[in-house]
Amino acid sequence: MPRPETDIDAKRIEIMEVADKIIRERGAISFTMTDLAAAANMSQSNLYRFFDSKDALAEAMAGEWFSDLHKIMEDLVQTDMPVEEKLYLFFAKRLVLKRARYDEDPELFESYMELGDEHFEVIKGYVDLADHYMASILAEAMENGYFEGLELDAVVSLVNTMMQPFCNPKLMMQMMHLATEERLRLVISTILNGMRADRDQAAVKPELHIAG
Amino acid sequence: MPRPETDIDAKRIEIMEVADKIIRERGAISFTMTDLAAAANMSQSNLYRFFDSKDALAEAMAGEWFSDLHKIMEDLVQTDMPVEEKLYLFFAKRLVLKRARYDEDPELFESYMELGDEHFEVIKGYVDLADHYMASILAEAMENGYFEGLELDAVVSLVNTMMQPFCNPKLMMQMMHLATEERLRLVISTILNGMRADRDQAAVKPELHIAG
Repeated sequence: MPRPETDIDAKRIEIMEVADKIIRERGAISFTMTDLAAAANMSQSNLYRFFDSKDALAEAMAGEWFSDLHKIMEDLVQTDMPVEEKLYLFFAKRLVLKRARYDEDPELFESYMELGDEHFEVIKGYVDLADHYMASILAEAMENGYFEGLELDAVVSLVNTMMQPFCNPKLMMQMMHLATEERLRLVISTILNGMRADRDQAAVKPELHIAG
Repeated sequence: MPRPETDIDAKRIEIMEVADKIIRERGAISFTMTDLAAAANMSQSNLYRFFDSKDALAEAMAGEWFSDLHKIMEDLVQTDMPVEEKLYLFFAKRLVLKRARYDEDPELFESYMELGDEHFEVIKGYVDLADHYMASILAEAMENGYFEGLELDAVVSLVNTMMQPFCNPKLMMQMMHLATEERLRLVISTILNGMRADRDQAAVKPELHIAG
């Protein structure tokens, strides 16, 4: 949690901590603002001064969840390093952070996923922003001779598809043991080698014909 | 459903259809053998003549679910065709079947996933068998100069990791729109090109060093 700048911020953070406790104990779906007011020893009208809906609360909690992840991505995009390593670290650093969060409290992690499903419109902006950062790294890879002949959007989709076990937190819960840094490195190098500019001489051409 | 060979088989199939109806209406987790007996207009002792536990029922239902998928895999493994196309079809044919099942009845599909989670020990044998078929195709790919320097087990894991959106039915429910045959073909060709024998001359070598 960041250092609060005002009393209002401090109280909001305190309320979010109470909400964490509730969702850890009984899941993210069923609790209401009334439950939250009771657990925080506040009147409902007082609670509404800080969060005017469960959506607003979910948005603030998502902001906390994503802030460290965004710092990682923002720093990395600006760093000067070979694009191959940058793409690897883009996934590896977030993988390490998400795995640590999962290991610290698997039930809370799962409850956050439920909260995200329930308020997907709130989450979507953050997901899109992650895609935006990834697109800027992939554009750099394209300038370096990878993914020739594909549009950037198609490259983002393709990489997202192959990287699911390393970036989709719900899938990570299913297969945490498979999503190692070692395997991540192998997947990244497979994608880049498989999609480098001279792939026309490669053994298999990506035919876009669809077999029945 | 296959043609029943005996009256016992016919009755088992009838009971499984009643079970389908129950899980479609109220999910796979909560129903009991008592509920099933009532819905099938049978005494509980009569029901137990056909399925002696919910596990036995889940096993029979999983057998139905997997039988067409296994026929696809078994036929394909024995077919004589280039290994690149065989690997593509191994995923494409099952993708088409699973997507059709999902489109036909998304809620039933989701309930089957829950049933599988609840009886994972039953499912695991089928998952292992699919890995076994895939391993035989990947071994053929290795004989053709792909995946040099890796053990077969590592290749199976690597391919499983990158193919999740095309074979993990739970993930497919989340991203059905991304798991197209066109993208599948691109992913398969990326994996094979990225992992072909002459990748030592490739732009990125798969370093197994793990960055912090």
